[in-house]
Parts: sequence; C-alpha cells; structure tokens
Amino acid sequence: MSWNVYLAGEIHSDWRERIAQGTKQAGLEVIFTSPVTDHAASDDVGVAILGEENNGFWKDHKGAGVNAIRTQTLIRQADVVVVRFGDKYKQWNAAFDAGFAVALGKPIIALHPEEHNHALKGIDRAAMATAETPEQVVGVLRYVLDGKLPASA
Amino acid sequence: MSWNVYLAGEIHSDWRERIAQGTKQAGLEVIFTSPVTDHAASDDVGVAILGEENNGFWKDHKGAGVNAIRTQTLIRQADVVVVRFGDKYKQWNAAFDAGFAVALGKPIIALHPEEHNHALKGIDRAAMATAETPEQVVGVLRYVLDGKLPASA
Amino acid sequence: MSWNVYLAGEIHSDWRERIAQGTKQAGLEVIFTSPVTDHAASDDVGVAILGEENNGFWKDHKGAGVNAIRTQTLIRQADVVVVRFGDKYKQWNAAFDAGFAVALGKPIIALHPEEHNHALKGIDRAAMATAETPEQVVGVLRYVLDGKLPASA
Amino acid sequence: MSWNVYLAGEIHSDWRERIAQGTKQAGLEVIFTSPVTDHAASDDVGVAILGEENNGFWKDHKGAGVNAIRTQTLIRQADVVVVRFGDKYKQWNAAFDAGFAVALGKPIIALHPEEHNHALKGIDRAAMATAETPEQVVGVLRYVLDGKLPASA
Amino acid sequence: MSWNVYLAGEIHSDWRERIAQGTKQAGLEVIFTSPVTDHAASDDVGVAILGEENNGFWKDHKGAGVNAIRTQTLIRQADVVVVRFGDKYKQWNAAFDAGFAVALGKPIIALHPEEHNHALKGIDRAAMATAETPEQVVGVLRYVLDGKLPASA
Amino acid sequence: MSWNVYLAGEIHSDWRERIAQGTKQAGLEVIFTSPVTDHAASDDVGVAILGEENNGFWKDHKGAGVNAIRTQTLIRQADVVVVRFGDKYKQWNAAFDAGFAVALGKPIIALHPEEHNHALKGIDRAAMATAETPEQVVGVLRYVLDGKLPASA
Amino acid sequence: MSWNVYLAGEIHSDWRERIAQGTKQAGLEVIFTSPVTDHAASDDVGVAILGEENNGFWKDHKGAGVNAIRTQTLIRQADVVVVRFGDKYKQWNAAFDAGFAVALGKPIIALHPEEHNHALKGIDRAAMATAETPEQVVGVLRYVLDGKLPASA
Amino acid sequence: MSWNVYLAGEIHSDWRERIAQGTKQAGLEVIFTSPVTDHAASDDVGVAILGEENNGFWKDHKGAGVNAIRTQTLIRQADVVVVRFGDKYKQWNAAFDAGFAVALGKPIIALHPEEHNHALKGIDRAAMATAETPEQVVGVLRYVLDGKLPASA
Repeated sequence: MSWNVYLAGEIHSDWRERIAQGTKQAGLEVIFTSPVTDHAASDDVGVAILGEENNGFWKDHKGAGVNAIRTQTLIRQADVVVVRFGDKYKQWNAAFDAGFAVALGKPIIALHPEEHNHALKGIDRAAMATAETPEQVVGVLRYVLDGKLPASA
Repeated sequence: MSWNVYLAGEIHSDWRERIAQGTKQAGLEVIFTSPVTDHAASDDVGVAILGEENNGFWKDHKGAGVNAIRTQTLIRQADVVVVRFGDKYKQWNAAFDAGFAVALGKPIIALHPEEHNHALKGIDRAAMATAETPEQVVGVLRYVLDGKLPASA
Repeated sequence: MSWNVYLAGEIHSDWRERIAQGTKQAGLEVIFTSPVTDHAASDDVGVAILGEENNGFWKDHKGAGVNAIRTQTLIRQADVVVVRFGDKYKQWNAAFDAGFAVALGKPIIALHPEEHNHALKGIDRAAMATAETPEQVVGVLRYVLDGKLPASA
Repeated sequence: MSWNVYLAGEIHSDWRERIAQGTKQAGLEVIFTSPVTDHAASDDVGVAILGEENNGFWKDHKGAGVNAIRTQTLIRQADVVVVRFGDKYKQWNAAFDAGFAVALGKPIIALHPEEHNHALKGIDRAAMATAETPEQVVGVLRYVLDGKLPASA
Repeated sequence: MSWNVYLAGEIHSDWRERIAQGTKQAGLEVIFTSPVTDHAASDDVGVAILGEENNGFWKDHKGAGVNAIRTQTLIRQADVVVVRFGDKYKQWNAAFDAGFAVALGKPIIALHPEEHNHALKGIDRAAMATAETPEQVVGVLRYVLDGKLPASA
Repeated sequence: MSWNVYLAGEIHSDWRERIAQGTKQAGLEVIFTSPVTDHAASDDVGVAILGEENNGFWKDHKGAGVNAIRTQTLIRQADVVVVRFGDKYKQWNAAFDAGFAVALGKPIIALHPEEHNHALKGIDRAAMATAETPEQVVGVLRYVLDGKLPASA
Repeated sequence: MSWNVYLAGEIHSDWRERIAQGTKQAGLEVIFTSPVTDHAASDDVGVAILGEENNGFWKDHKGAGVNAIRTQTLIRQADVVVVRFGDKYKQWNAAFDAGFAVALGKPIIALHPEEHNHALKGIDRAAMATAETPEQVVGVLRYVLDGKLPASA
Repeated sequence: MSWNVYLAGEIHSDWRERIAQGTKQAGLEVIFTSPVTDHAASDDVGVAILGEENNGFWKDHKGAGVNAIRTQTLIRQADVVVVRFGDKYKQWNAAFDAGFAVALGKPIIALHPEEHNHALKGIDRAAMATAETPEQVVGVLRYVLDGKLPASA
C-alpha cells in the first residue's frame, strides 16, 4: 500500500525532511512530492527559461506558471496533501493549494504552530487533522497507512 | 487482472479474514483494504497523536478525522466496496461509507444477516449484490474476476 | 437568495415542521424537500404501484427503488442537506444519505441527541455543523442565508 | 444575462459596496454574494448557535464550519469569483477560496494593492485578471457582461 | 417542485400521451421532453437540412448527429429518464440512452412488456423501477413528486 | 423549452445576426450568447481597464484573460455551441473553444465553407453536425427544439 | 504503451478471439477485458451464489447485479470500448454499455454487419469508428497504438 | 517520478525529437506520446482500414474518428500537454487539443514562434507557459520534474 503525499507550503525550515525521515524509520511506503523548495530558483524560473522581463509582475507571472505546472499536477496525483504554514511571509500559495486540494476531494492535513490557530480556522476546519509538529504528521501517516498508534500511546 | 476491494463496516467478527482466505484459495488477484479494525486504536487515535481533549465530542472528532483520511482515500482507490453490517451497534459509519461509494459510482456489495433486510432495504437497493455470508462474497468476487461459478453450482 | 435544503433521516417526530416554521418566522427563503415521511406509504409503494411480491425482500427492494428516485434526485438538487438521527430504529438510510451527499460535495448539518455523539462521530466529522435541536438548525440557516446571529446572542 | 459573482476575501473596507454601486450605475445584471462580513458575528457564530466551548480552537472550528456552509455553497453557485486581499491580516481564507474556485473551473479575478504582487504571484497567475481597484473590477464585469469598454477608453 | 422527465425509446404507440395525461390529471408539475417522435422526420433530418447523401450510411450518420444534439442535451437536463421498449424493432437507441443516463447518475424507470424481462435484465437492474404500463409510471411519478400512493392502494 | 446556444468563432461577418433572425422567425426560444464581437474592444480590453503595457505579448495576455472570463463562463452555461470558421485569419480561438466544449460534453455544430473541410476534419468529427450556411444552423436548431423539418423538405 | 480495451456485446461467436489473436500477431500491448461469455454461467450466477429465486424476474435481477459489478468496473477501467452486435437476440446490454461508455468520455468502436447499419445509426454516430470485421478492429487498434496502416494499404 | 507528456500539434518539423533528446540528456523520466505524425497515414487511415469512400468529406471523417481514438485517449492519460504551432497550415487540431486539455484541467505549454503571439493570445493565456523553442520546453520539464534551472541560468 504505497501512497502519494504532497507536502505543500513553507519552504524555509526542515519539516519535509523530518516527515520523510520519520516515515522512513516507521517503514511506511510513502512517495513524497513537493513544490520546488529552492526559493531563488522558484522565483527566477520563468525568466531563466522563457526569457527576461523588465516588469516584475510579468517576471513573477512567468515563474508562477511554470511552478503551477508542477504543483497542480502533483496535487492531482496525490492521495493526501499536507499543508504547512510557518512563522514568516504571507504564504498565500499554501492556502491556495489547500483550497485547490479540498475542492478536488483530497484529504488535507494542516501543519502549523498554535499561534496561527485563529487565522487558519477555515483551513483547519477543511482539514481532516491539524498538527503542530512534523512528528505528529508522521504519526498520522503511520496510523493511516499501517493502523498503528505511536509507541508512546 | 488485479482489483482493489475495500471491506467497510463491522470490525468485531472475522468476516474480513474469511473473505481474504476464500479469495486466496480461489487464486484471485485481489488487494483488500479496510478501515483500522483495532477498535481501541480507532477510538484513541486523535488524542494519541494530536493531543489530549477534555471533551469527549472533540476527542471523537479528532479521531474521526484521522480515520477519514484512511477510509475516504481507500474508498476512492477501490474498484468495489463490500459493506458489512453485523449484529451489534448502530454501524452508521458502514452506511455512510456505502452512500459515499455509491455517489462516486463504485459498485457495492452488501453483507448482512437476513434479520436486517428491512432496515437495510435502501442500501440493498443501491448495492449490486446482497450476501449473507462471507463465502457468498468470495463467490461473487470469483465470478466477477474469473468468470467462474461455485464448484457446487 | 433562495436555497434548497434537503431534510434527510428520521420520520417519526416533528423536527421538519419545527425547522420549516422557524425559518418561516425568520423570513428566510428556503425550499425544503424531504423523503416521503408517511411510513406506511414508503414501505408499500413498490408493490402498491408495480405489483405484488410474495417475498419480503423483493417487496422492500421495489419500494426502495421508487423511494431512491425521489431521495437521490432531491439530494442532487439540494444546496445543503440536514441529516437527522432520532432515538429509535437503525436509521441506516439517514447515514447512507449523509455519505452520498458528502461525496457529491454538499455541505451537511447533523442533527441528533447528544447520546449518539460517539456512534455518529464519523458523520459529525463529515458534517459542517452538529446540532441537537431543530431550533439550532434554524439558527444555522438564518446565519448562512442572512448573516444574522440569534437574537439572544 | 444575469451572473452570480462571489466577492471573497477582505471584510474591513468598502470594496464590496463600491463594486455593487459601480455595476448598478452601469446597469449590469449581477447578483453579488459574499461571506458574512460582520467580523464579530463571523467569529462567534459557532458558539452562539451550537453551544459554548472553553477551548478557543474548537470555538473557531465550530464557527468555521457554519461559515463554510455559506461560502462553499455560494462559490459553487457562482459564475465568477472576485478575491480581494487587503493590507492587514493573513487572509488565508481568501487564498483558500481562490484555490477552491479554480479547482472547480470558476474564473477568478484577483483584487489587491500592487505591494502584494510578489506574494500573490501564484494566485494572480491562476486568476483571469488582476485589478488594483474595485472600479477596475466593475470595468471587467461591464466588459464581460455587456461587451463595453470604460467610457474613458 | 417541478421536475424534468425525459421519455426515451419507442415512438410507435401512445405511451407518452398516456403518461402526460395521467400526470396532468394527478396535478403533478412535470416537464416532459422526448426525442422527435415523427419517424420520417427523424430519419430524414440530416439530409433535409445539411444536404443530400448518396450513401445510406452517411445519410443516417448525418441524421443521427442532429438527433443526438437534442437527445443528449435533454437527458443531461433531465432529473429522471423513463426508457420504453415496445414490441417491434431493435430499439438500440433506447438502451443506449439508458446507459448514457445511468453513467450520468440519473435515475431511470424502465417501461416494457413482461415478455422482454429476460432480455432487458441488465437495464432493469440499472433502473430504479420497472413498469409494464404507462399508468404505473404515472403512479411512480405521483409518489416521487407528491408522496401519494394510487387511490386504489 | 428555452436553450442556451453559444456562438463561437469568426466575428467579421453577419452570421450571428442571420442565425438570430432565422430562429426568431421560426419562433424558437433560444438565448444566444457570444464572445465580444467588437474586434478593437476585444483587443484593447486588458490595457483599457487594467493598465497599460509596453509589451505586446502582455497586452494581449491581459486582454485574453478578460475575454476568457466571458467565453469560458458562457460555454459552461451553454446547452449547444456553434463554432464558425470564416475565410480569414487563423481563428485558433474558435478551435480552442470547440475542444473546450467537447471535453465538457457539450454538443457542437461546426459552421464553415466547404473549402475548410479537410483542415477542419478533426473538429467536424467531434461535431454533431457540420453546416455551410447560417440558415442550415437555424434548420438544425428548429429541428432540435421543435422537431420540425424545413418547409422545403 | 499498454491500453485497456473492453470488448462488449455479443457472446456467441469468436470475434473476441480473432481480435486478441490479431493484436498479438501485430505485437500490440493491449489488455483485453470482457463480460463473462459463458452464457449459462452469466444467466445463473445470481441464484448460484446468492440463493434460489422462484420468480424469473428476480433470478435475472440477482444475476444482472453480479454481472454489472464486473462490466461497469471494467468499462470504467478501459481506455477504449469495442461494442459488437451480432445476428441474433436483442443485445440491449451491448447498447447500454455503449451509452454508458460514451457518457464517461470513453471512445467506442462499433462492430456489426452492414445489415444493422440503419438500426444502429445512433450508436455508430456516437462511435469513433464502425467496423464490419474483427480484423478491421485489429487494424484500428494497430494504428491507434503503433501508428501503422495495414500492410496491404 | 515519471510523467506522461502529450506532444500535440505540428507534425512537419523535428520539435518532438528535440524535446525527447533534450529530456533524455537531462536524465528526466518522461513518457512522451503524440498523434500519428506520418501525414499520409493520418490522412488515409479511415479508408485504408474501414473501407473506401468516394466523398472526400466522409473519407476525412472516417480518418478523423480513428485518429481521435488515439489523441483523446492520450490527452486524458497525460499529466501535461505541449501544443506546438508551426509556420504552415491552419493547425486547428492543435488548438482543439489545447481547449480539450484545458477543460480537463491539464496544464498546457504552448510552443510557437513569436510571430503567432497575437493570433494565439487566447491559447497562450490558457497555457501555463509559452515557449519559442523546443529547448525551452525541455527547460520547463527539467524544472517541473527535477526542480533545476538551466545550467546557463
């Protein structure tokens, strides 16, 4: 039973690695996918490949299109989507991905510090689970795939 | 020709094992999936992973969300859904899963004792087959996958 | 802004009337639909129209088919589905309707006494709101349609 | 030719009124819908109707569910969705609504000040038009419904 | 509560009129639609409008395309589809329409003499009701729309 | 029985007027919609409303987005789509609209001079009817809505 | 490039074998599926597995349900559906399967003798190709999968 | 992470080979599919397999049907669709394929010389990226699959 799990959202901390490591240690068959997490590459990709732009809006537009090919395709292929909100930035892409996934009928897991609870209440409501740590996400995936509770439980 | 068959419903008897054993003996290529059948784990999973709750309603709510990640994903991946109703409990989840599967266009097989016939008439009507024993479900799967009737037929 | 609201489930108490009366008093534009709530008619409809059956299973089967024409069509036409669970009977049709509606992307409101909380945790999780009284459902509809809180709030 | 246009997002400025007024002056047949824009009501609705909660997370959860009945239904009914991002707050609901609408195939119009261009590049890319003022949205709707350019053009 | 009911199939007897008359007498709000029932017009429509063909196959092909614009659109608009099989001809269009409607999630009612029971078992199984007379179809529609059994019941 | 018919494609001849006039004379209840047929307005709309662009590509991009809000919405609302190809220009939008409509399950009618038969074979194959004159389209609509052949037939 | 091709319809001649043999000789990667072609087994399956019935209608009903689990699942899994009409019987199931497949967006290939052309015009119109011999179907599959015309062409 | 990429459009230059070679050199796991690019075979396939036609329109019609089995199936299977417009011919099939893919929610990449920018503005707007050279498409695919910018960037 191998599942596709898309890891959406914040790209400035090691939460993806911690989830990947935890699921590996738990012996789960999960294929993780994600947006491109190299911030500079993600910002420059449009003009780097498709030609320079003088106007910042259109530079962003070109880049966002190329990134969307990746993210929308991977969300459509995913069985479950984890959406992470961190401490900084607006992170509107993360919220957009959450809405996109929910409308397609994908179960989502929200991952964010407690301080965002009120601002993220709509997304937490749409989510099947809200976690505060990557380890909790690993716990959810272990239960979902293998039916096991954490050892400490 | 390998099929995914989701075994929904009652978790207090050995019907899943009997179906699995019967299909194995018949040499059928079936991948069976199911909800987590460890009742205690299923009840506790929300708080065990995502943090304690004082209120029973929210404890259940957290657990139900985690379980739904598993069950809804597996129903979407399934080719056929078997829905079992046993002797005890309300088993509303089983009926919910049946409605969920039918709306997605999945064929369902109902499995329950004759005494529930009247109460389950709506689900039996929505089902493609109603069986009383796990062995009959094996019979249906053998015919559906391999085109063979029971030896005794 | 007129909404279609389907009132699924229990047919032995006056909850539908109380919701209809409450929304009327609140001046809301709601079109309510429901299954046929005449229990005897609902049970007999198959054989009364399409011919007698000796076998109870097929009598039920015929009747359930005719009822499903009504209920599935009305659920598909509905914007919101309220699902009521009462004190008696198995009420598997109510749970089936809930699953059917959720898979179609319809928001559902669960309505049941607190004593069913644990047994209905899966459906409460899939619901956007869980109410214990018809008056609370009226409150939800008033807010949803007109954006107003209860006077006492 | 009457269209349903859902006005998602920021609820602290008069942008909805300005769009409504502008389309009225232009003689367009548009039915506007929106989330409940009374911030306090929106925050309190869950507990005001469905019962108190000690825990802020569950208070928010209850309220978010009731609000989602309204917003998801209206987005599904809409022909076009305008998504407004203002100066303050995280506004993750707005971004969630944008993703939800796009996945359903609804054309969206983004409305936000230029300063958010970079942070909103993903949503601007998914949008069919990006406007900075409500009057520009009126201009888009006038063209879309009546085929007319602004008088000054 | 006005429903769209598409009357598919046989065009050589007065069954559509009998259903229309019966529902009118019962005071039901039903909008009936149907294929073009003028056999000669239906056969000739392609070449009559779009130009002559020497080859019978292409004459039929042209006509079938024009008829499909009507029939597929009306089936998509319908809430319920009645499929009638008569005594003569192959009536493959009726069976095609039944399959088309079922795949779209429309409830169908089969209407045919008992002698076709075995040959139509697959379609009767996919149908929510099987009737032998137009009056039984009226009975089903009366129950489905108004919740009433036949007076004689 | 009122139908929505979207008239896609060429905007430099009077074919839309001829179809509208013909259906009016025939007494048909059809609501026609179309893209904005004022070529200059269609080209300028993006910059006229949303701000100037130095770069022709982005000027076109802005305008195409605004036009797409109209065209994609109207195609989704349509029961039938007529796609007209004229003598001049590449008319790739017309072909795009045809593909878009077919993928959504809408029946399409192709309208073009015989000289384009070979180049349009793929679209003619996807169409339910191919006409050479607007009057033939009127003939198709009259048959489809009212079941009548042309008087001369 | 391996495709799933469902072979629907007539079960009394060797057309399936001829197609399978032809595609094998052509070296095509095709997985063929089909209904159960053992006529007696297909008729008896319901009662043989799920219990006897006195009434022929319900015997057929039970059997048709079990067969539908197989056929509807395989049609949903198929990339292409071939629908064969032979010389005998009503073959309404074949026409039903054609309509079912078309509504799901599956391309269908009709296979029947010329004598059925007029009666099957609606299905031929919905099909992407009409063949008279199994060898022509092999030709179509060879072109579709490998891009090659028949050697004799 | 292996993706299916459908290469639609122009069949008279070596752009498909250049994309295939470039992705191979980049070590990407991509499965490319395409229409049959042998122009003569594509034109003749209908009559070569299914029988001669005197009339050019019907010859084209037969051939277009067989080609559509291939192209529509491959577009449905694709994760991404590249649509190429060259210097010659009307290339309406390419535009049709673009519209078909967009309506199915597939991200598309437009590939064409700058001179077509104005005529293709609608398709460029619907595309996630517009490229002028096959090497740019390789760049997009490398970023999308492996997250890497071009070496020269």
